[in-house]
Amino acid sequence: MTGHSFDDAVALQHTAPGRMRAKTSTDWANMVGPFGGLTAALMLRAVEEQPDRIGEPLSLTVNFAAPITDGDLDITATAVRTNRTNQHWLVELSQDGVVTTTATTVFGIRRDTWSETEASPWQVPAPEGIAPTGLHPTIAWARNFEMRFVEGAVPGADAEPSPSSVSTLWVRDVHGRGLDFASLTAVSDVFYPRVYLRRGAVSPAGTISLTTYFHADSGDLAAIGGDFVLARAHASRFSRGYFDQSAQLWSRAGELLVSTHQMVYFKT
Amino acid sequence: MTGHSFDDAVALQHTAPGRMRAKTSTDWANMVGPFGGLTAALMLRAVEEQPDRIGEPLSLTVNFAAPITDGDLDITATAVRTNRTNQHWLVELSQDGVVTTTATTVFGIRRDTWSETEASPWQVPAPEGIAPTGLHPTIAWARNFEMRFVEGAVPGADAEPSPSSVSTLWVRDVHGRGLDFASLTAVSDVFYPRVYLRRGAVSPAGTISLTTYFHADSGDLAAIGGDFVLARAHASRFSRGYFDQSAQLWSRAGELLVSTHQMVYFKT
Repeated sequence: MTGHSFDDAVALQHTAPGRMRAKTSTDWANMVGPFGGLTAALMLRAVEEQPDRIGEPLSLTVNFAAPITDGDLDITATAVRTNRTNQHWLVELSQDGVVTTTATTVFGIRRDTWSETEASPWQVPAPEGIAPTGLHPTIAWARNFEMRFVEGAVPGADAEPSPSSVSTLWVRDVHGRGLDFASLTAVSDVFYPRVYLRRGAVSPAGTISLTTYFHADSGDLAAIGGDFVLARAHASRFSRGYFDQSAQLWSRAGELLVSTHQMVYFKT
Repeated sequence: MTGHSFDDAVALQHTAPGRMRAKTSTDWANMVGPFGGLTAALMLRAVEEQPDRIGEPLSLTVNFAAPITDGDLDITATAVRTNRTNQHWLVELSQDGVVTTTATTVFGIRRDTWSETEASPWQVPAPEGIAPTGLHPTIAWARNFEMRFVEGAVPGADAEPSPSSVSTLWVRDVHGRGLDFASLTAVSDVFYPRVYLRRGAVSPAGTISLTTYFHADSGDLAAIGGDFVLARAHASRFSRGYFDQSAQLWSRAGELLVSTHQMVYFKT
């Protein structure tokens, strides 16, 4: 117990080399099972804690194969390949011997090269001028984040369909916990399903595969600390039960931290 | 042998349940090893050919862990989880017992829902008015595609750095082979590294992780046949040895077929 619910939720008990045990956390519950971003964070953390891990996260793909029920989580992390400057991992999360979640992640050592951010930061009001709202209070995990929506807040009971799937929000840990790769992974999945916005109503939806690309290194994250990051998501196509979502996360100082993408199941 | 080099290159010999053997193809060679898009196509095809496979591809992530050398390829495909309407697979490609490539893919059954394409098709000249160019003739795999660049063709010997990483091209199979999921997967990786364009020069670069989201179903692909598709890619951030790339593929009729993303290693 560290006293912070995120740290507790991603705490791993190492039971054998590459094998870990965790527990679901009621603080991070979603409507069914845990918040997907927390599960993704757990998969990343499982690799971060391996003694033979090299470098920092470059990419992470998490596949949500089956619902996770409250209780114990068994995680295995296997270094499939170690190269000179990067390392490929396979991670599996199971409950009672049944795989619920798979992930692959690439860690790597960064080095000085020509660097440039081609994407432009968005011109939006500072978070201080925006009222904090968030998601519906019954969504436990969302209470861990302070969310200040620039546009595209969750549709209310009298909402109309929107022609745009864009949400832009400032978001930070409600307790001021500093960003690290695990929490950045969780924040990368902070967006409610885009179909809610397009249809003006809540409907069944769930991520099936989530990919996160890390542009920031640990020094960049330390500099942000517990400050707000700016997050924007949109969908490209809703088609026969599935839609894609793409998003970026920026620091307040105008650094692109993450590009993240997912394929989402929906029913409406 | 089917007479078409793509079909030959993704041909699988089934040696045991979930185990297959393939061979590298000189027609699909890149500068080092095979074209990544072909390897991705092979991973997808390995699942498509499993007798217990349900539905069609929704998402695919391929991790390029180690170089592939010319010769035999051993592929395993494991259904990690089968749900009512989707199925999660793990695929591994190895040579002489060493894993070179991992993939996860989700297949699913599509069904009628509210559907809409939010992204807008691009206004570009028809392919018939653009001269076919392509990549450098020493790049074997690229000779399988007819490429007509709207913008962002490969920088020549006297190229200057470009402020934009965008390439837009019409592309089709040079022999008129009809699109299927495997060939669509290959086309989704048709873009040369964005860093070439930004720096105005060819430099070492290679994809480390590639994710493809499929919006089209097999009926949509059959309707396209061997016609051109319109492909556009861009990068968001180049940072300390890595950059991300996002791209879309559209049919000539204005249907969004694929959203695809990758993280790329570079040195410059």
